[in-house]
Amino acid sequence: MPEKFDIIYHEFVDENYKPSGTDLIVVFRVTPAKGISIYDAAGRVAAESSVGTWTTLSVKPSLFEKLKAKAYRLHDLGDGSWLVWVAYPLELFEEGSIPNLASSVLGNIFGMKAIEGLRVEDIVFPREYIEWFPGPQHGVTGVREILKIRDRPILATVPKPKLGYTPEEYGKIAYEILVGGVDLVKDDENFAGQKFCRFEARLREVMKAIDKAEKETGERKGYLANVTANIKEMEKRIKLVADYGNQFIMIDFLTVGWAALHHARELAEEYKLAIHGHRAFHAAFTRNPRHGVSMFVIAKLGRLAGLDHLHIGTPGVGKMDAKTMEVIDYARLLREPVFKPREDDIIHMEQDWAGLKPVLPVSSGGLHPGNLQPVIEKLGADVLLQVGGGVIGHPDGPRAGAAAVRQAIDAILRGIPLDEYAKEHRELARALEKWGHVRPV
Amino acid sequence: MPEKFDIIYHEFVDENYKPSGTDLIVVFRVTPAKGISIYDAAGRVAAESSVGTWTTLSVKPSLFEKLKAKAYRLHDLGDGSWLVWVAYPLELFEEGSIPNLASSVLGNIFGMKAIEGLRVEDIVFPREYIEWFPGPQHGVTGVREILKIRDRPILATVPKPKLGYTPEEYGKIAYEILVGGVDLVKDDENFAGQKFCRFEARLREVMKAIDKAEKETGERKGYLANVTANIKEMEKRIKLVADYGNQFIMIDFLTVGWAALHHARELAEEYKLAIHGHRAFHAAFTRNPRHGVSMFVIAKLGRLAGLDHLHIGTPGVGKMDAKTMEVIDYARLLREPVFKPREDDIIHMEQDWAGLKPVLPVSSGGLHPGNLQPVIEKLGADVLLQVGGGVIGHPDGPRAGAAAVRQAIDAILRGIPLDEYAKEHRELARALEKWGHVRPV
Repeated sequence: MPEKFDIIYHEFVDENYKPSGTDLIVVFRVTPAKGISIYDAAGRVAAESSVGTWTTLSVKPSLFEKLKAKAYRLHDLGDGSWLVWVAYPLELFEEGSIPNLASSVLGNIFGMKAIEGLRVEDIVFPREYIEWFPGPQHGVTGVREILKIRDRPILATVPKPKLGYTPEEYGKIAYEILVGGVDLVKDDENFAGQKFCRFEARLREVMKAIDKAEKETGERKGYLANVTANIKEMEKRIKLVADYGNQFIMIDFLTVGWAALHHARELAEEYKLAIHGHRAFHAAFTRNPRHGVSMFVIAKLGRLAGLDHLHIGTPGVGKMDAKTMEVIDYARLLREPVFKPREDDIIHMEQDWAGLKPVLPVSSGGLHPGNLQPVIEKLGADVLLQVGGGVIGHPDGPRAGAAAVRQAIDAILRGIPLDEYAKEHRELARALEKWGHVRPV
Repeated sequence: MPEKFDIIYHEFVDENYKPSGTDLIVVFRVTPAKGISIYDAAGRVAAESSVGTWTTLSVKPSLFEKLKAKAYRLHDLGDGSWLVWVAYPLELFEEGSIPNLASSVLGNIFGMKAIEGLRVEDIVFPREYIEWFPGPQHGVTGVREILKIRDRPILATVPKPKLGYTPEEYGKIAYEILVGGVDLVKDDENFAGQKFCRFEARLREVMKAIDKAEKETGERKGYLANVTANIKEMEKRIKLVADYGNQFIMIDFLTVGWAALHHARELAEEYKLAIHGHRAFHAAFTRNPRHGVSMFVIAKLGRLAGLDHLHIGTPGVGKMDAKTMEVIDYARLLREPVFKPREDDIIHMEQDWAGLKPVLPVSSGGLHPGNLQPVIEKLGADVLLQVGGGVIGHPDGPRAGAAAVRQAIDAILRGIPLDEYAKEHRELARALEKWGHVRPV
C-alpha cells in the first residue's frame, strides 16, 4: 500500500484557485504567530480543517486531492492580521450536520501554535449545503400569523428578576404583563426546571394567565417556554408545551448544543411549534475581534438550523456590548432572501438563502419605553422586542409597564414624539419619569 | 402584588459572606470596563448569572433573597484584572443539567458592557451537585480492564490524513496500525459519516481489522468510533458500535453540545461503552487568558458528565498551544479523587470528586516516537497517547510506525535511552532518523 506522499502546508494555499459553485467558503481573520508567514498560517488553517496533518505521510488516501481545502485569497489588514478566504469541497461535510461542520471549520484550528489569533468571520453556504437543512418552520410571517399581529414589533417580557418566582407568583406576573399589552411571556435563559419552580407547574400557571388575558384583551398571547434541558427531559417539555396548547418554545441553543437544537427543530415540526433561540454563551467566543467565531456566523447557523426567532442584541442602546452596524447586519442576514454586504464591508460575502424562511430578529438587554425608538428606527418593525426590567420595573407595576411599552410602540409607529404622547398616556409618562431615554450599562 | 423593591448591583457583593458547604463557587477573572469599579463589575457578574436585572423592580419574588449569588472575595492581579470568587446557592441550578449550569454561569455575563474581559477560571462543585451526575462509567481502571493493559500508556492512532480514505482503505490502514502494536484506531474529529465513507461501512471494515489483528497479536484492540452527529443518527451509531462488538465511542462533545453528551452517556451505560471525549472547538473560548472559559473548567465538566477519556493536549511538546503546568493540572484534575491546587496556584480551589471515577487523560497533537518521553515523564503512564502523523508518517509505513511507538514506550518505561534502544529496534531507529526529537509547530 505505501506510496510516498508529502503533505506540505503550502499545498493548501492556491491563489489561482477559483471556487466552484458548490464549494463552502470560510472567511477567516488570521493573526499568524511570531515567525510564521501568512502563507504558512493560512495553509495550516486550511489543512487542519480539512485533510492535513503536521508531517509527511507514507500513504495517500484515494480521495485526498478531491477533499483538500484551498486558501485562495489573502488580504493584509495592516495590523498583523489578514483576511483569508478558504474554499472547502462540499464532499468534506456530512449532510445536515452542524456538529460535523463545526468540528471541521470551528474545531482544532483555534488551538494551533502557528496562529496567535483566528476568527471565523463568515461561512458562505452553497445552495446544495443549504438544501440539507430545514430552516425556520414558521419564520417571520408564520409567527405573525400565530399571534395575528400584522405590522408592529412583537413584544415579549421576561418576568425579572430572572429567577425567584414560584409557579403561582410567575403565573400572576405573567397575567399582569399580558393583560397590560405584551404579547409573549418569556422565560429567562437560566430558568429551566429548578426545584423551586418546576417546568410543568410553571407552564400550567402561565397557560392559565394566557387564557385569561386572551379573553380579556381579545388578543393572542403566547409563552416562550424555556425547554433547555438534557435530551429526554427536553423532549418531555416540548411535548408538554404542545399538550397545553402553547405554540412557542425557547431554547438556549449554544448551551444545549447544535445536536439538541436539531432535535428540537424536528420535534417542533411534529408539534408545529415556533422556536425562540437564546444565544447565552455566545459572547465567550464572539466578543474578541481577533479570535473565536463571529456572531454573524452564529446567526447564519441559527437560520440554517431552523430557529424562528434569534437574539441579536440592541443597536447600541442596551446593557450588552454591540456595534450598531453589526446588529443591523444580523437583522438583514436573518430576514433577507439574499444577504448582500454593505459596500464598505470587505469581510462578508453575499449569501443566497435558497428559499429558507426569514428568522425574526430579537432585540433585548436593557430595553425600556424610552430607548425603543432607536431600535425600531435601525432594525425596522419586523422584530421581536424583549423588554424585561423595563416592564417589571415600572413604578406602578408590571401591568402599567406593559401598557407603557405598547404606548411607546404606538407613538413611534405613528411618528409622535414620546414626550408628547406621554401627556395623554399616564403609563408611558411614568416610565419616562423613571428611565427617561437612558442607555443602561 | 407590587412591593417596592430595589435591586442594586452592590447587593451582590458581600466580602463578609462565608460560603456554605452546599454553595457552588465560581472563580472569575474580571477585567472591568473603563470607568467601572471592580465592585460594580463583580456585582453585575454575580447578579446577571443569578437573579439580577439592570433596573429597580416593583415586585419581589418570594425566593429572591435565597437565590442571590454573592461575590465574596476580590483579589487584585495588578494588571487591571481581578480574581472574583462568587458563591451560588445550590437551589439556583436544575439537577443534573450542564446546559442549565452553562446558561447561568457561562451565559450572558460574557457579553456585558461593564466588563472588558471575563474568564471563568474554576467552578467548584459541592458534593450535592456532583451527586446529580454519573461521572465516568469505566474510568481509568475500567478502560485498562477492557484492553487488558496494566501498566503502560494506552496507544491510539488516527489514520492521517484526517479524511480521504474509503472504508476499505481505512480498514486496511487500521489493520496495519493495530497489528504493528497500537491499541486503538481513532477517527479524527471531522470524520463523521460523510458520503465517501459512511459510518457503518467504515465500522464494518475497522471491526474486521480488529478481529484479524487481535488473532495475530493476542492483544485486545478497539476503535474510537466517532459518533458525532445529530441525536437520532448518534443513537443509531452508538447502537451499531455495540452491535458490532466494539466497546468505545468517540464524541466531539463541544460541537454536539452538553445535552447530546448527556444523552450519549446514558446510551453508553445501556451498551457498556467507554466514551472518548474530543474537545474540538474548545480553543475558540479557552485560549484567551482574559476572556472565555478555561480548559480547566471544561475538564471538570467532562468528568462530571461522564467521559472516560478526555483530550488535554501535550505538555509543551506538540503542535497545539499549551502550558506544561496547566496540562499537568488537567491530568491531575481528571485522575485524582481530590484535586488540590499547587502551592503557588491562587486561581484554583480544592475539588473533592465525591467518589466519581477518574478520567483517562489523552495527550495528542504532533506526537511521534521522539517526543513521547517528556509527555510520559510529566503526565505519568496513566494516559492515552494518540500518535497520528507520527505513526502514519513513518518512512516504512504505518505498521512500522506503530511498532516504533511501542518500542519507544518500552524503552521509556524501562529507563533505556531511545537512541540506545533504537540500535536493536529498526522501526524506532527509522522514526528517529526522520523526526529526531523535534517539537512540531
